[in-house]
Amino acid sequence: MEPVRKRILDAVMGIVAIDAHTHLNPLRPAASTLDDLLSYHYWTELSHSAGMPAALVAKDVAPAKRIRNIAKFLPRLSNTVQYGWLIDIARDLLGFDDDFVDERNIDALAKLAAQKMRRPGWDRTVLAKSRIDVAFLTNDFDDKLAGFDTHLYVPCLRCDELVLRLGQPGVLDRLRACSRVDVKNGATLEKALAAVFAHFKRHNARACAIGLTPDFAPQKVSRASVEPLLARTFAGQPLTHDECRRVQHYIFWTITQLCSDHGLPFDLMIGAIRGVYPAGVTGGQDLFDRRNSLSQYDALFNAFANVKFPVSIIDSGENPELITYSWIRPNVYPAGHWWYSNIPSLIERDLRGRLQAVPRVKQLGYYSDMYMLELGYPKFNMYRRCLARVLVDEFICDRGWSEEKAVDLAADLLRRNVQRIFYNAQM
Amino acid sequence: MEPVRKRILDAVMGIVAIDAHTHLNPLRPAASTLDDLLSYHYWTELSHSAGMPAALVAKDVAPAKRIRNIAKFLPRLSNTVQYGWLIDIARDLLGFDDDFVDERNIDALAKLAAQKMRRPGWDRTVLAKSRIDVAFLTNDFDDKLAGFDTHLYVPCLRCDELVLRLGQPGVLDRLRACSRVDVKNGATLEKALAAVFAHFKRHNARACAIGLTPDFAPQKVSRASVEPLLARTFAGQPLTHDECRRVQHYIFWTITQLCSDHGLPFDLMIGAIRGVYPAGVTGGQDLFDRRNSLSQYDALFNAFANVKFPVSIIDSGENPELITYSWIRPNVYPAGHWWYSNIPSLIERDLRGRLQAVPRVKQLGYYSDMYMLELGYPKFNMYRRCLARVLVDEFICDRGWSEEKAVDLAADLLRRNVQRIFYNAQM
Amino acid sequence: MEPVRKRILDAVMGIVAIDAHTHLNPLRPAASTLDDLLSYHYWTELSHSAGMPAALVAKDVAPAKRIRNIAKFLPRLSNTVQYGWLIDIARDLLGFDDDFVDERNIDALAKLAAQKMRRPGWDRTVLAKSRIDVAFLTNDFDDKLAGFDTHLYVPCLRCDELVLRLGQPGVLDRLRACSRVDVKNGATLEKALAAVFAHFKRHNARACAIGLTPDFAPQKVSRASVEPLLARTFAGQPLTHDECRRVQHYIFWTITQLCSDHGLPFDLMIGAIRGVYPAGVTGGQDLFDRRNSLSQYDALFNAFANVKFPVSIIDSGENPELITYSWIRPNVYPAGHWWYSNIPSLIERDLRGRLQAVPRVKQLGYYSDMYMLELGYPKFNMYRRCLARVLVDEFICDRGWSEEKAVDLAADLLRRNVQRIFYNAQM
Repeated sequence: MEPVRKRILDAVMGIVAIDAHTHLNPLRPAASTLDDLLSYHYWTELSHSAGMPAALVAKDVAPAKRIRNIAKFLPRLSNTVQYGWLIDIARDLLGFDDDFVDERNIDALAKLAAQKMRRPGWDRTVLAKSRIDVAFLTNDFDDKLAGFDTHLYVPCLRCDELVLRLGQPGVLDRLRACSRVDVKNGATLEKALAAVFAHFKRHNARACAIGLTPDFAPQKVSRASVEPLLARTFAGQPLTHDECRRVQHYIFWTITQLCSDHGLPFDLMIGAIRGVYPAGVTGGQDLFDRRNSLSQYDALFNAFANVKFPVSIIDSGENPELITYSWIRPNVYPAGHWWYSNIPSLIERDLRGRLQAVPRVKQLGYYSDMYMLELGYPKFNMYRRCLARVLVDEFICDRGWSEEKAVDLAADLLRRNVQRIFYNAQM
Repeated sequence: MEPVRKRILDAVMGIVAIDAHTHLNPLRPAASTLDDLLSYHYWTELSHSAGMPAALVAKDVAPAKRIRNIAKFLPRLSNTVQYGWLIDIARDLLGFDDDFVDERNIDALAKLAAQKMRRPGWDRTVLAKSRIDVAFLTNDFDDKLAGFDTHLYVPCLRCDELVLRLGQPGVLDRLRACSRVDVKNGATLEKALAAVFAHFKRHNARACAIGLTPDFAPQKVSRASVEPLLARTFAGQPLTHDECRRVQHYIFWTITQLCSDHGLPFDLMIGAIRGVYPAGVTGGQDLFDRRNSLSQYDALFNAFANVKFPVSIIDSGENPELITYSWIRPNVYPAGHWWYSNIPSLIERDLRGRLQAVPRVKQLGYYSDMYMLELGYPKFNMYRRCLARVLVDEFICDRGWSEEKAVDLAADLLRRNVQRIFYNAQM
Repeated sequence: MEPVRKRILDAVMGIVAIDAHTHLNPLRPAASTLDDLLSYHYWTELSHSAGMPAALVAKDVAPAKRIRNIAKFLPRLSNTVQYGWLIDIARDLLGFDDDFVDERNIDALAKLAAQKMRRPGWDRTVLAKSRIDVAFLTNDFDDKLAGFDTHLYVPCLRCDELVLRLGQPGVLDRLRACSRVDVKNGATLEKALAAVFAHFKRHNARACAIGLTPDFAPQKVSRASVEPLLARTFAGQPLTHDECRRVQHYIFWTITQLCSDHGLPFDLMIGAIRGVYPAGVTGGQDLFDRRNSLSQYDALFNAFANVKFPVSIIDSGENPELITYSWIRPNVYPAGHWWYSNIPSLIERDLRGRLQAVPRVKQLGYYSDMYMLELGYPKFNMYRRCLARVLVDEFICDRGWSEEKAVDLAADLLRRNVQRIFYNAQM
């Protein structure tokens, strides 16, 4: 590697990042066993795709057997970056010597993992090695947000259930219980939602977040016009697809207004369709449909000029739109490289475009989306390598920037913009 | 930089280009002040996106204040290529020493700009430095086309108003006035349009051009079938959306027929949606929707085999289609890298694909779309750098072409194809 | 070229490939004359696009004249990779000295071609030079599959006529004749289709294949519900567009079931629209519309878990979806780089993404789609160069793989995965 590449990579590796979107359990953020780790859907779904029956990783399989079942199929996906994540964890975090993982050494790795993971402060060790010092969470609306340091693990209100599944069994009861509001119509629903927001704000919440299907196109719907539909929802009566959509639009708009009232950015994660492959492994049943556009959000972006919308797209083909919308609209922020777009060839292409045309203070470079702390290490490293490459090729070689200037740009993407966007930091 | 890269870049930089699409005012093509220049929407919209209230660059703000308002926000977009355009202009055209522009030096730059811009022949100096010797215009249908050298600044008929906004206040009156035809039905409308074409042809017009929304899908509509709709349009009565579309289709088809009759290429600029962000700065309110296809133009392309259609796409994601349509259809020509697709990462990707599969004599490499002459310099240089890179990587390294052959290909893209397509030059 | 690049390229060039999709005539797989070769639509359509009237290559033009007509236009497309294919054939297969082909040397090339092509074993020579040892065919449903070595030229059932054009003149009669079933309703149609499958299986068929328009969205349709529509089809009565679609869905689903019953993979070639440019040259009248999604196939992929679906996409913009669907669904396999996506810039981009996220054992690297054996040489070489570049950049440089490991991955893509997917080879 040329010396300049090495220097920039080292510098980018050294920047302490804030991870603005994870699915960590703050009470138990790290894995306890290799089985915990290997249950991450990337490995189970790729093994399944490569021929492993889903039953081999079902809940009733013994953990020691389950990891062997996966390990058997890992050579079939040794080309993938996700396999690379496992090797990085094994070698760099766990101290494993082999540069492969398969049937032959999975038991040895499991033993090593158990030893390392039970050490006191393992979670802090992993965070330090990952150069991440704050991780945002994804909390259910009725999460008590208690028992952990909310400055280290920052609460975020995941509102999918409220917006999209309010009529499903249990959701309304949970809302009534946590909000202490007897929800029975639009007014009391809005009161309950406001209580949820107040609770989250009291516990240092920094964002609201939602995942939306590609056909979602938010629009303003008056409370009065949905009262009959809400009444039927609360009575457990079925709605047609269009009626259901109207209720969703109403709640979505109400929640955006609450983001406005409480000064919370609203993370829009656009494009996934859940459960389209029901025979898949847990977490590996979702896909997307590329026939969507950010223009579906024009009315929303216009109506809420003071709400910040970090936007994640599942289809890298939407990146030209995301560049454009972030370039023109002050309240749209390109956020990370999400899920199926989170592979180096797409990251580099998307990142390069964003760096060429979106103001540097608006770009949320990366988040891990991790369920266990160990995943932050290889995922962020993958991104750091992409970023270092783009900084050298585009900024230092093509544009003649100094190395110092280039690394300073990286700090915007990895850290400062999270502070600007979610903490209103002035810098 | 490797010697071969330097040689190719120098050679590509040296080719005198024809700029086949600009918005220059031929009576005053260059800026007179820095405020003129900074009013270009790229800088105001990016500053606005980075946090500058639109009011800070409104018309009633004093010019000296306005440029300071923008300058304050420029550091927030110092990563963008558009910021780079400003630095290139400041340093290379104006002779500014600093390699940045912000609050600290904006007044000094303004003073320097005023000095340079008032020099006699500034416009000729800028053209020479930009290595551009002819620039096409974008003229309103009732432009007199008088008072300038139409061989240097070549008239093109912009027909958006005629096709899309004939019913809007004033348009019809202007058409009657300039054509001297008392437009009152389809036949007289066609006569008036023909008069417009004749006027433009008399003044050396080389193209007709139109901007079209992503949902536009031209089709043939008979005059008879729209007569009632035209009557209502001329009477100032409202039309439904569908009726309006029918009228637009009819006029669009009529104008395409006039292009055929007069031997004018018809520039199709596909995809922008105007005014979707009305709170934005002037020129920064437009976006796009990627859900479109060139297949919407199949009927048009089939019906007018003898009309040349240079096609510009706002969404780089449509480039695979543009490659394909240009590869199969003799009358479709890929044209430049337009607006939101005009950033190096997209240009290089799109250019490489076109160079691999579209006949070299059909490719309109680049146009500046500029409103002031100074912009042609950094924009064309950006493209020339992309082109040089692709020539070295793809043609000289991968395919073993000689440097001479590679540079000759560049001359097709920068110059000769404009002559072939708009001047019917045989070469 | 750096030594490592040379070594990897040589190694990739040396891997003997299986070409899993061609349009070869097994009774006469190679060209007999240069005119045979130049009739390949890539050259005629690009020449036509560059200005050659379609009449100049019509059937009634004398061969010697026809090749001169094309040759005259070749300099206009000397930048394209398709022109490069011709040069590769001329120089490497035919031993031509010139590094260009145009009016000046076309007669000499024709003479040389005639000499070489009449040599005994020319087809074997071409295969050996191309490092291809098996080529799959594309057979009409009533092909006798006789008179050739079905282990060298492997039959595949092309079912477009059966699914999409059963009502067109002659198709039904041919089905009755070859199946010896008196097709008169759904039950007998299914019996006839089963007979076709049995015939193909008896002759070593390895796949069923179909080309589908971008709007095709298969769904299960019961036999009972289409009986009236089938009756009208068999009676030669017209169907509405929707009725026609229902019949197509029914037959498509039936054929997929037959693939399941007979263990045949079903090649889906998605996106082309045939005949949209009817004035084009033969084979150069088809385009595509990017507004489609693999989600249109969710129901199919769910319903037939045991059918392998190698999926080819005509629009490279659909590659992120293809990566994702192949990553999640065990029965979806990304197949080659088809038609308008078969140019290096798109191949490399698409290949890189697939190699980063799709299990290595699932990727069908490339097929030639060739009509004459000579085309396999330049097409596969183009792909081999792309693959070598990705292996060096991505796997050897970025990921630190050994050269041996990288070349082994190439063998999966070029050879072994065809054996795994179409021959059920366990390896």
